[in-house]
Amino acid sequence: MNDNNNIKKIMEPRSIAVIGASSETINLGNQVVYSILKSGYQGKIYPVHPKCKPVHGLKAYPDLYSINKPIDLVFIALNPLATIEVVKMCGRLGIHGIICVSGGFGELGERGKKLEKKLYQIAKENNIIFIGPNTLGIINIEKSLCATFCPLGDLKKGNISMLSQSGGVGYSFLNEIINESLGISKWIGVGNRGTLEFSDYLNYFKDDDNTNVIAIYFEGTDKPREFVEVANEVRQKKPIVVYMVGRSSIAKEAALTHTGSMASSYKIYSDIFDQFGLLKAQSISELVAKCKTLSMAPLPYGSRVGIVTMTAGPSIIAADKLIEKGAKIQQFSKKTISKLQKVLKTKDIFYKNPLDTDGAGFNAGIFGEVIEIILGDPNIDILLPIFSYFENWRFPTPEIINTFKKYRKPIIACYLGTKTQVAEEIEHLHINNIPVYTTVEQAVFGISALIEYNEIRDNAKYR
Amino acid sequence: MNDNNNIKKIMEPRSIAVIGASSETINLGNQVVYSILKSGYQGKIYPVHPKCKPVHGLKAYPDLYSINKPIDLVFIALNPLATIEVVKMCGRLGIHGIICVSGGFGELGERGKKLEKKLYQIAKENNIIFIGPNTLGIINIEKSLCATFCPLGDLKKGNISMLSQSGGVGYSFLNEIINESLGISKWIGVGNRGTLEFSDYLNYFKDDDNTNVIAIYFEGTDKPREFVEVANEVRQKKPIVVYMVGRSSIAKEAALTHTGSMASSYKIYSDIFDQFGLLKAQSISELVAKCKTLSMAPLPYGSRVGIVTMTAGPSIIAADKLIEKGAKIQQFSKKTISKLQKVLKTKDIFYKNPLDTDGAGFNAGIFGEVIEIILGDPNIDILLPIFSYFENWRFPTPEIINTFKKYRKPIIACYLGTKTQVAEEIEHLHINNIPVYTTVEQAVFGISALIEYNEIRDNAKYR
Repeated sequence: MNDNNNIKKIMEPRSIAVIGASSETINLGNQVVYSILKSGYQGKIYPVHPKCKPVHGLKAYPDLYSINKPIDLVFIALNPLATIEVVKMCGRLGIHGIICVSGGFGELGERGKKLEKKLYQIAKENNIIFIGPNTLGIINIEKSLCATFCPLGDLKKGNISMLSQSGGVGYSFLNEIINESLGISKWIGVGNRGTLEFSDYLNYFKDDDNTNVIAIYFEGTDKPREFVEVANEVRQKKPIVVYMVGRSSIAKEAALTHTGSMASSYKIYSDIFDQFGLLKAQSISELVAKCKTLSMAPLPYGSRVGIVTMTAGPSIIAADKLIEKGAKIQQFSKKTISKLQKVLKTKDIFYKNPLDTDGAGFNAGIFGEVIEIILGDPNIDILLPIFSYFENWRFPTPEIINTFKKYRKPIIACYLGTKTQVAEEIEHLHINNIPVYTTVEQAVFGISALIEYNEIRDNAKYR
Repeated sequence: MNDNNNIKKIMEPRSIAVIGASSETINLGNQVVYSILKSGYQGKIYPVHPKCKPVHGLKAYPDLYSINKPIDLVFIALNPLATIEVVKMCGRLGIHGIICVSGGFGELGERGKKLEKKLYQIAKENNIIFIGPNTLGIINIEKSLCATFCPLGDLKKGNISMLSQSGGVGYSFLNEIINESLGISKWIGVGNRGTLEFSDYLNYFKDDDNTNVIAIYFEGTDKPREFVEVANEVRQKKPIVVYMVGRSSIAKEAALTHTGSMASSYKIYSDIFDQFGLLKAQSISELVAKCKTLSMAPLPYGSRVGIVTMTAGPSIIAADKLIEKGAKIQQFSKKTISKLQKVLKTKDIFYKNPLDTDGAGFNAGIFGEVIEIILGDPNIDILLPIFSYFENWRFPTPEIINTFKKYRKPIIACYLGTKTQVAEEIEHLHINNIPVYTTVEQAVFGISALIEYNEIRDNAKYR
């Protein structure tokens, strides 16, 4: 089943009815309406509640019938039994897209499973597709739409999209996206995956022009084969980075009562992901760090990283961790070294990779000359410049941007400083497709993801 | 050699002469004077430079002789040969404490090694101790002293002290300290460790009343035995967390040319650290995360963690990773469960650890009642409450503080939200000795460090 067009309809609705939205702010539906409004959504919003009181200034309707206008998406925030009734009504009204935040289904054991089965049956009979149940909702930045029960915040437009099997983890991901000055395209809380599975969403992302990188928080699925088969196709076009849990039996059990999926064997999934060319992350911040570089930097020719720094320690950490992850820290060509000597004018420097420019590199102009020489070296595919904030000296931001424009090889920058000290520089670099990190370990995550994706993308071994 | 009093004199100087401080801001000595002034240091500062022009409004002296006042600390920012001359002069003037930022010594190979040897010999003959050479300097927050060539920024007073074998990594550590709303007590860039070794500094920290936790960035030492022997003593009083590099041969070589220390075998050091009861970190952010909890939370009775959340996913990650690190996620007592049922009033919740309160826990008051019940359970030693930011609902901060005051068992909180959204809550909790993290993986680092330290502190196995 290719549900791309149907998913697209849910993700780009022209009108949304929010069922169960009362006038009180403690009410979930009320919060959903508030979120949709706050995110700047330009379509129609119809709150539905028997009491019919206005919701955040919007006229409310007693039921779906009374709206009497075309509805692309129905958002349901009710108990399981009431949810089923609404779905029946959607069927009668010819509404095909539903987001169901309601819990109380498969994640609550046998009784819930029965209700869930009934829900799916009605949906199927009426050609309805669902996101959820038991989901936080969806976000589509291009449509200024945050249809969740937590408001959007400061999310910017970007090209990273996410599938999350947990509202909380997905929300954490979005917070990290904001902390890292990134943007997103789409975010889907998959919940119990009623009529739509990971594979359906991945197919939708594959054809979505605004999605360049896909992040997944994964607990488990009943359809692992479909998942990896589609993922294997998608990752030839767009990188997929998966964060999964489930090493311990406690986690497995908890996942079962969370979104109704046994977290199966971590080991098995982990091996399958490797085999099918998916990238992995071990934490939310690693997931975001990897997506950052994948979403900005061009693909490199190879895995040879040149490291330039004005403070040695972080470059040693970088070299150590990059080698561990399969990067090559190769020496510069003789020509490069002789050019460097002319610029740095001292014998008190080891002209090696990583290159510690020492005091000379504190000058952003000289630092810029150095990185231009190094990225011009045919032995170097990727550049990692490390520069530290100092009150009276500036960052080599224009130099890095010019060097990138000249060679179009990936530059992944590490700017040491507090978030406040580097915020403005980060904006400049990100606009120019140069990812920048404030710790060297995060930069290494970015570079290693790029190298890994570059290797698997066109490699038949992974097909 | 116990240099505690001498180190103390350097760390708490009543007067500082900065050699090589010109009136130009590009000059290192000039920056050092600026940093010292900016940090609010109350002692005397004497810039020394042949040109004798005022430095940041301070009178400058042509040489050390001309100052003609008692000097506790001489800060040298000159080339190696000039440095040696100044040290001789210090000897003649009876000055015993020096910080030497100058590079060009052991890290530059044979010639540098010879100069370094000479430097140490002169120092020894004159009973002088050194921090450095090749160091960024020192910070002592209690004395409002930042004697480095990068200004202090927004560092607050805290009880974490750091030894860093790299200026850049140490500086990165300080940035993370600021990002995490933490403070420090002392920071020492050990550089090439001329007359003072890790063991000397550790002894000094052991007796320093303001230091409760010691962080180390470690590349290598020529005196590993002294290091671990002293560390083994110190860690019975105060936890030590070590971040080290050197897995790859490139890193080993780079470390050699960085602070003149071969990073020896990573594996050997790693095993020794385990054996002697030191904690380890794999990144700067892990180092800071571990120090955070160790610096605030009381020691627990055991390793049984109770997890309470209003969003399931992050609690599953927490359980998974905590079990991996040796924590116990035990079930609650029957009494606890019956109390929880009275508060949460629903059968649609699994009364298990981790406890997902679901919708009910969105109310901070109810969430507070739940965590009070759980921390009161004699089967629970440590509490991890996970709460997510929502615009219209508040965080359970007062409830968490009251619960902590009632039981005095460690609470390590995880507040999901952007840095801006949670900044104020973090301040409140930190003042009350409740560490709080914005990602669940960081919270796990904190809890696991606490459990690990609790186990090794009084354990004869590690002595």
